[in-house]
Amino acid sequence: MKGTMEKKNEITLRDYKRDWIGYRPEIKVLDCTIRDGGLMNNHQFDENTVKAVYQACIMAGIDYIELGYKASKRIFAPKDFGLWKFCDEDDIRRIVGDNVGKIKISVMADAERTDYHEDILPKEDSVLDMIRVATYIHQIPTAIDMIKDASDKGYETTCNLMAISTVQEGQIRSALEALIETPVNTIYVVDSFGALYSEQVRDLTKMFLDYAKPAGKEVGIHTHNNQQLAYANTVEALIEGANRLDASLAGLGRGAGNCQTELLVGFLHNPKFKLRPLLQCIRDYIEPLREKLRWGYSIPYMLTGRLNLHPREAMKFMEETDAKDIVAFFDSIYEEE
Amino acid sequence: MKGTMEKKNEITLRDYKRDWIGYRPEIKVLDCTIRDGGLMNNHQFDENTVKAVYQACIMAGIDYIELGYKASKRIFAPKDFGLWKFCDEDDIRRIVGDNVGKIKISVMADAERTDYHEDILPKEDSVLDMIRVATYIHQIPTAIDMIKDASDKGYETTCNLMAISTVQEGQIRSALEALIETPVNTIYVVDSFGALYSEQVRDLTKMFLDYAKPAGKEVGIHTHNNQQLAYANTVEALIEGANRLDASLAGLGRGAGNCQTELLVGFLHNPKFKLRPLLQCIRDYIEPLREKLRWGYSIPYMLTGRLNLHPREAMKFMEETDAKDIVAFFDSIYEEE
Repeated sequence: MKGTMEKKNEITLRDYKRDWIGYRPEIKVLDCTIRDGGLMNNHQFDENTVKAVYQACIMAGIDYIELGYKASKRIFAPKDFGLWKFCDEDDIRRIVGDNVGKIKISVMADAERTDYHEDILPKEDSVLDMIRVATYIHQIPTAIDMIKDASDKGYETTCNLMAISTVQEGQIRSALEALIETPVNTIYVVDSFGALYSEQVRDLTKMFLDYAKPAGKEVGIHTHNNQQLAYANTVEALIEGANRLDASLAGLGRGAGNCQTELLVGFLHNPKFKLRPLLQCIRDYIEPLREKLRWGYSIPYMLTGRLNLHPREAMKFMEETDAKDIVAFFDSIYEEE
Repeated sequence: MKGTMEKKNEITLRDYKRDWIGYRPEIKVLDCTIRDGGLMNNHQFDENTVKAVYQACIMAGIDYIELGYKASKRIFAPKDFGLWKFCDEDDIRRIVGDNVGKIKISVMADAERTDYHEDILPKEDSVLDMIRVATYIHQIPTAIDMIKDASDKGYETTCNLMAISTVQEGQIRSALEALIETPVNTIYVVDSFGALYSEQVRDLTKMFLDYAKPAGKEVGIHTHNNQQLAYANTVEALIEGANRLDASLAGLGRGAGNCQTELLVGFLHNPKFKLRPLLQCIRDYIEPLREKLRWGYSIPYMLTGRLNLHPREAMKFMEETDAKDIVAFFDSIYEEE
């Protein structure tokens, strides 16, 4: 009898997985609408839109909101981009004020494209909570230095290992071995090209967890919807044990876009998440952008995803006035017969 | 040494599952563009469109094409519907001629809505190859009689157990026990409401296989895209061992539509499948229908899927001229706070 009781209290991950009624409170959702969506409009969102997304995320119980990049002004001329390419402290504060206790705020810093020593302020001087270091596999040494810098300054940090679908397993393992020695809090599986299938996501998430968990770190997942798998793959990763989930409103993000925040919130049973404020923001601020920004699943993005390619060719095609001749696009990137 | 050789020749399902290079030749794809898409236009496709889909499926290596229903003319007045609601032999032959050895042709017959004794001809008088009996759980006795009738007449048959997400496990097991005693060739998991998540699809597919395989029958999967899981769930079912997969061009089908044939063909490694002819047909015949028919993923369909409801309320909303106030739709079907 005592044995049974003990067993009952010992809730394993597997129990959580099969528990359709409960939820895993450790799961945190990050809304990257403004950051990833900024890749479709050179980060030129007006303040009302950014404010609306910020308010909607707070009302919906979203855990983090990502507002843009900390890009180097030496590499990227400010006149060519919107404010959210650089996320200056004053610009963020105009949206969020002091943001006390409302939602955590993050920005992304690309390895080799950020003047992080200068542009990332000490935490006590900033309203930011988290710095997410985005890196390709060959930039890992730089990324590690950025993680240490941000951590020393007082921030929570993540490492987002991009284009994972193009990296060999041995290299991924080396990167993970190096990253668990750093102060990074979360290591992200990033399917930049929307190329991964569910089994691959499960295998990668397991591999990441094998390194991260013993080191006291979390694993996250960031997907793209090239093959209409962004949401499905996010769910697969969370079932395996990923606790940090990226999503965006109506999937707004580069190319085929991301996992939809509204779909994900529908799956998570944590009652703190509310759907209605997200739908309001989508109706009033996000859908009106669709005709101009043209993000979301379409066949050209499916083709680059299937071929494990950067979406840039598909983005170029989708920017054309007509953008209907999918066969010509197929012929341009594909040789089948 | 001999033991090793023997083991190598004994390729199990699990080996197939993990084999990213090979493929399972038993997998057959059925394109239901005209049949399920017909639910969006009262089956009023013109002959050129039906011919184009037929030709594209042949060129793409698709195994079956489904052209419509065998609906009762006593229940449904022919003047209110297109030809593909009834699939008269002469109408089908105008599209496919004698269809010798090109692709298998199926029609769907709904339990209690088909005059099957009269309207389904003996196989020797018909160009049809397969009759798919669609049934809700309470109609199983009728469905079994229809299966026997079609089988006696010489057809391959399937039983498509609709709205499975609303049926209790005990009832499903009773239905499966009854169906394996019939001559039916394939039993389909049908997620009519687009309500199922991957784990549920895996569990259902396993349950169906447990009954079907020992009886020498196949299991199929038919999905709807309410939660952008139609393709993902089809892949999950095939990984578990489902060998009959429904899909439609650009997902054309009721409400949020089906698993996209072009996505599915991209996943299957069997070299007989070709993508380009499908893209041509989508560009020239299917996408031009989108503005009028408005199928495919959208938030109203997501909401009915999430609530495990028939999509009819969402379809009504989507038919409205504007169809943008997703919050009003949410409020009309949902009570959250």
